[in-house]
Amino acid sequence: MRKVGIAASGLTEFSKNDLPIDTLMLSAVKSLFDESQNLSQKDIDVVITSTNDNNKYLANIISELSGISPKSAHAIESLCNSGTSGIVSAYSYVASGLADSVLVIGAEKSNNPGLVLEWDKSRGQYTHPIYWSSMFTNAHMRKYGTTLEDIAYVSAKNHRNAINNPYAFFKKEFTIDEIMKSKPLTENLRLYDCSMPCDGAAAVLVSAENTIKKFTDSPVWISGIGQKSISAGFTKNEELTSMSSVIQSASSACQMAKKTISDIDVAELHDAFGICEIIELEDLGFAPKGKGSTYVKNLYDTDDKKINPRGGLIGSGHPLGATGIAQTIEIFQQLQGKANKRQVEGAKTGLVQNMSAAATSSTVLILES
Amino acid sequence: MRKVGIAASGLTEFSKNDLPIDTLMLSAVKSLFDESQNLSQKDIDVVITSTNDNNKYLANIISELSGISPKSAHAIESLCNSGTSGIVSAYSYVASGLADSVLVIGAEKSNNPGLVLEWDKSRGQYTHPIYWSSMFTNAHMRKYGTTLEDIAYVSAKNHRNAINNPYAFFKKEFTIDEIMKSKPLTENLRLYDCSMPCDGAAAVLVSAENTIKKFTDSPVWISGIGQKSISAGFTKNEELTSMSSVIQSASSACQMAKKTISDIDVAELHDAFGICEIIELEDLGFAPKGKGSTYVKNLYDTDDKKINPRGGLIGSGHPLGATGIAQTIEIFQQLQGKANKRQVEGAKTGLVQNMSAAATSSTVLILES
Repeated sequence: MRKVGIAASGLTEFSKNDLPIDTLMLSAVKSLFDESQNLSQKDIDVVITSTNDNNKYLANIISELSGISPKSAHAIESLCNSGTSGIVSAYSYVASGLADSVLVIGAEKSNNPGLVLEWDKSRGQYTHPIYWSSMFTNAHMRKYGTTLEDIAYVSAKNHRNAINNPYAFFKKEFTIDEIMKSKPLTENLRLYDCSMPCDGAAAVLVSAENTIKKFTDSPVWISGIGQKSISAGFTKNEELTSMSSVIQSASSACQMAKKTISDIDVAELHDAFGICEIIELEDLGFAPKGKGSTYVKNLYDTDDKKINPRGGLIGSGHPLGATGIAQTIEIFQQLQGKANKRQVEGAKTGLVQNMSAAATSSTVLILES
Repeated sequence: MRKVGIAASGLTEFSKNDLPIDTLMLSAVKSLFDESQNLSQKDIDVVITSTNDNNKYLANIISELSGISPKSAHAIESLCNSGTSGIVSAYSYVASGLADSVLVIGAEKSNNPGLVLEWDKSRGQYTHPIYWSSMFTNAHMRKYGTTLEDIAYVSAKNHRNAINNPYAFFKKEFTIDEIMKSKPLTENLRLYDCSMPCDGAAAVLVSAENTIKKFTDSPVWISGIGQKSISAGFTKNEELTSMSSVIQSASSACQMAKKTISDIDVAELHDAFGICEIIELEDLGFAPKGKGSTYVKNLYDTDDKKINPRGGLIGSGHPLGATGIAQTIEIFQQLQGKANKRQVEGAKTGLVQNMSAAATSSTVLILES
C-alpha cells in the first residue's frame, strides 16, 4: 500500500460572522492554494466537504467556484467527527489508488443544525451537549475526586495556548478565578469550560507518496488511523468516566502506526468541554486513570504546549465540520516545524483525536514527519 | 490491490408513505441481513449512508439501531449521485485495507431537500429539474430530429420493464399514446416522461475478496469505476445534446475494467427524464450520436431488457439517495442470474450510470460476475 500524507493546508479565522458557508470554504481553499505554490486545480482528483450545513451539492459547488473539475465531489457528515471522517475517507481514496490527491474542506456556521442531536430522545428535554458534559463531570468528580478548579485548568491552559494561534476565536488569557466565576450553565459547568460554536473553515490536501513532493518539501504522513462508533444515543455509554470510542480508536491507530502513546510528541484532543480533555488524556494513556487533571495542571504550570497547542476547541472555537481538519492542520504544522510560537520543539510524531456526540464515536490519527 | 465485490443487497418498496428516513433505512438493512444468512453485525467495519435528508448522524443512528458497532459511520451526499458515490467510497475503504466490509445504505423521502438545487441561481425562476430536461430535449430535437414520440418510447419501455420489479413505484404498462397525452409540464415534457420522486431505501454490502465468500456463493466484482464532476451550475454544460460527465466517467470506468461498451450485457442508466436515457445511450457508445432514440425503439419492439431492466428511474421511482444503490443492486442480481422475469440471459458484465443535477456530475461502475 502506498504511503499517504498531508501536503498542504488552509484556514480561515474562527469567528462569528455573516459569511455564507460556501464563502468560508472558498477562503480556506484559497489559503491552501496560496500555501502550495505548485498546486494546480488539475492536480485534485477528489473534493470532499465536511459539514453539518443543510445546503446540498456543496462539494461540487466549491469545486466549480475553485476551478476544480474533480472525478468525485461529495459531502461527508458525522456531526463533530465529520472533519477526520473526511480525512480518513481521503486517505482511503489515495491508498486505494482511486485518487492521487484529495482536497478535504470542512466548514460550519455557528448556528448549524449539528449542535443538538434531535434524534436522541433519551436526553429528554436536556438536548444540549452541556448536559452530557455535566454528567461526565459529575461522574469523574465522584469517582476520582476531580474538582471544578482542576477542570478550570484545561480552559486556562488552552486559552493561553490560543493566544499564539492567529486563527483562534479567543485570543485572551483567562485566570483560574475568571473561569470558575464565569457564567454557570449547569450545577458544575461554567461558560468558560465550554468550546464556542463559531463560523470557520479548514482545508487539507491529502496526497500519495509519488506526487506529494510536488506540493511540499516537508510532507507529513498519516501512519495510523483508528475509528470507532459505539452508538448514536447518549445512554449507550457504558460509564461516564471513560470514553470507549476513544480507547478503541486509539488502540487501532497505534497498532497501525506501530507506535505507543509514549511516542507521541504533540497531540490535538477534542476538548468540547474541559472534562473531555481530562478523560481523553486518561483514556489515551497520557495519564493514569483518575490523574488526567494532575497531568493538565502540570502542563499549565510548566507552560508545556504538548496537548492542544493551538488552544483546542475551547481556545480556538468549534466550527463543527472544520474542527477535525483544523486539529489535523495543527499537527501537520507542528511536525513540519512551522508552528511558530506554538511549536513543540523537535516534534516528530503527533496525534489527533476528534469525536462526536458525547464520545459515541471517535477518530484517532497518528501523523509522522 | 485486492478485489472488491458486492456480497449482499436489500431493498424496500419504492412508494409514497409516511415512514421516517431511519425506518426506511432499517427496512433495507433488514432485507440485506435476511438475504445473507451468514452475515453478522460484527462483520461490518464501516457504515455509509447516502441521502439528501437533513437529519444528522444518520449513519451512526442506523448502526446503533441495527446492532452494528462499526469503525466509521458517516453520511455521504452528492444529490442524485449520492448512491454510487457511497459505493465508490466503500470500494476505496475496502481496497485500501481500512475495512473488509462496508454497508452502504441509501434512502430518501419524496419531499427531500435535494429535489431542487437552490444554489444554482443561473436557473432563475426555473429551478425545477423539468426545465433543464426540457432544454436538453429541445436541443436534441433540433440537432438530431428526435421527436416527442421517440422520447415516449423510453417511458413505455421502462414502465413495461418495471412490471417485473416487485419494488417498483409503478407496475403498470403505458402505451405511447397514453404517455404522449399525459399532463404537459412544459412545452415538450409530459408527466410520464419524468421519474417520480418517492420514498424508498436500498442497501449493499461491499466486501473484500478474502471475506466475500462467507456471505455469498456468487459475488459480483466492481471492476471499473469512473467519476466526473464538471460543475454544479447548469450553465457550465458546454452543450445540451451531450453529457460530458457521462462520457468521461464511462471512459475511466472502461479503462479501469479493461472493457469496452460492446462487452456490456446489461446496464442501468440514469433516466431522470426520457431524454436522459437517449443521450446517455449515445454518450456511453451503445448507439451512434443522434441515434439513441432508434436504439430505444428497437429495445421496445423486441422486448429487449438490456437497458434498465428494473424499469429505470421512470418505472421504479426515484428516491434520490437510494437510486444509485438500487441501480447497482439490479446489476448485482442480473450478474448473479437472480433477476427472475427481468433476467438478461447469460449476463456476465454490467454497467451502472448514475448522475446529479443536469449531468453536472456522473458515476459509471462496471460490474462482473
